[in-house]
Amino acid sequence: MITEGVYKYKIAQRDIDFTCRPTLSSVSDYVLSAAGQDADRNGFGIRTLSENNWMWVLSRFCIEFERYPAQYEDFVVRTWVSEVNRLMTTRNFTITSASGERIGAAVSNWAMLDMNTRKAVDLSANLEYAHALIPEPSPAELPLRIGSIKASRQEERRVAYGDIDFNRHTNSLRYLGMMMDMLEPEHFENHTVRRMDMNFIHESGYGDTLTVAMQDGVQGETLFEINNCGQTVCRGRAEWQKLI
Amino acid sequence: MITEGVYKYKIAQRDIDFTCRPTLSSVSDYVLSAAGQDADRNGFGIRTLSENNWMWVLSRFCIEFERYPAQYEDFVVRTWVSEVNRLMTTRNFTITSASGERIGAAVSNWAMLDMNTRKAVDLSANLEYAHALIPEPSPAELPLRIGSIKASRQEERRVAYGDIDFNRHTNSLRYLGMMMDMLEPEHFENHTVRRMDMNFIHESGYGDTLTVAMQDGVQGETLFEINNCGQTVCRGRAEWQKLI
Repeated sequence: MITEGVYKYKIAQRDIDFTCRPTLSSVSDYVLSAAGQDADRNGFGIRTLSENNWMWVLSRFCIEFERYPAQYEDFVVRTWVSEVNRLMTTRNFTITSASGERIGAAVSNWAMLDMNTRKAVDLSANLEYAHALIPEPSPAELPLRIGSIKASRQEERRVAYGDIDFNRHTNSLRYLGMMMDMLEPEHFENHTVRRMDMNFIHESGYGDTLTVAMQDGVQGETLFEINNCGQTVCRGRAEWQKLI
Repeated sequence: MITEGVYKYKIAQRDIDFTCRPTLSSVSDYVLSAAGQDADRNGFGIRTLSENNWMWVLSRFCIEFERYPAQYEDFVVRTWVSEVNRLMTTRNFTITSASGERIGAAVSNWAMLDMNTRKAVDLSANLEYAHALIPEPSPAELPLRIGSIKASRQEERRVAYGDIDFNRHTNSLRYLGMMMDMLEPEHFENHTVRRMDMNFIHESGYGDTLTVAMQDGVQGETLFEINNCGQTVCRGRAEWQKLI
């Protein structure tokens, strides 16, 4: 019988920002680690896929919070795959405290890429994969499609050694970090993220000079777009929770 | 009886770079975490100090390796304070594998700062602190004093949200990350750090635009200097181990 994966983590010193709350990137990193561990457990992790020269590509991601986990707090990520079609699969996450209280949730969409042909692999033909499905609904609204933005502020960032993964592409969560770096510290004193949506559109890699742009949208949200020589690499939308 | 502190860690997915070896920053972060945990255990951690509005300031740091810990490897950091004089204290570290093999060592010098007066606290007057001394020699040569460099390449970096600690100063290990970001990926394919020395000279903070400069020194070493509007913030010296 297929069961959801259960992974335990703890917010470490290095996960926290100057307000002593964890950064959004660090919590998202734990969530995506759970995805990697669970794919491995079910036989379709990076190590198995690389035998075929296939890899998972994160296409969309959202994460939302009732509250942020606290410094040194133990928490649990549960994850399962609920859907698969030819090109895309949906992996879900709940984030709970050690005592079982729900503190957040996340949903991700992934494609599988054949690195030889640079084309998507037909997931519906992968029977092993279909066996891992748990038809339980997603614990949050699916990741939103984010349209182009009207930048009110932008900054250049060169992709360096510390930003790249084993494919020498920019790490998905570095984009999230670059977006948060556009905001003033004062903003983080008074707000946490209620929900963040990310759309990953094109790859960027070592040495690229990215333009990170932001737009203050309607009340309580900020839009982001990262471009590489005119090509959109990714977009984000942050919905803020004002702290009392 | 005072005993050295023993802290266990594991290299996680997010600690590794594109070569699948841990970054120097991530291993150094574990080492400095051990310092923080051990200071807490001995009653002079950040939480106790902040009651007096005092804080530890890292002045110099060196770390050296027989080999890097591997991805997912369990390792142990042992730490003890060997010396204290009026203005500075020496904290030592050994890094060993789970089976006890020595894989590295580190030495750090710290001052204690009174945040009200912005002056150093007299450590020799702090009797509690003197009780924690273990007169065992440092496991590596003390951190070197690094002179000014002749830059062969430089780049600007703005200090952003993700770079700052709870004092809104740039995190010490972010400087190390900025130095490593000056090097090409090819360099990390063929080299690991045999020894890194860091001198922390002045603080920088949110919004500052830093100039990160490097100089290829004598064979097998690289020098780094980070300046903020003409004031030197920190310097580093990396000695490389060529991989076969």
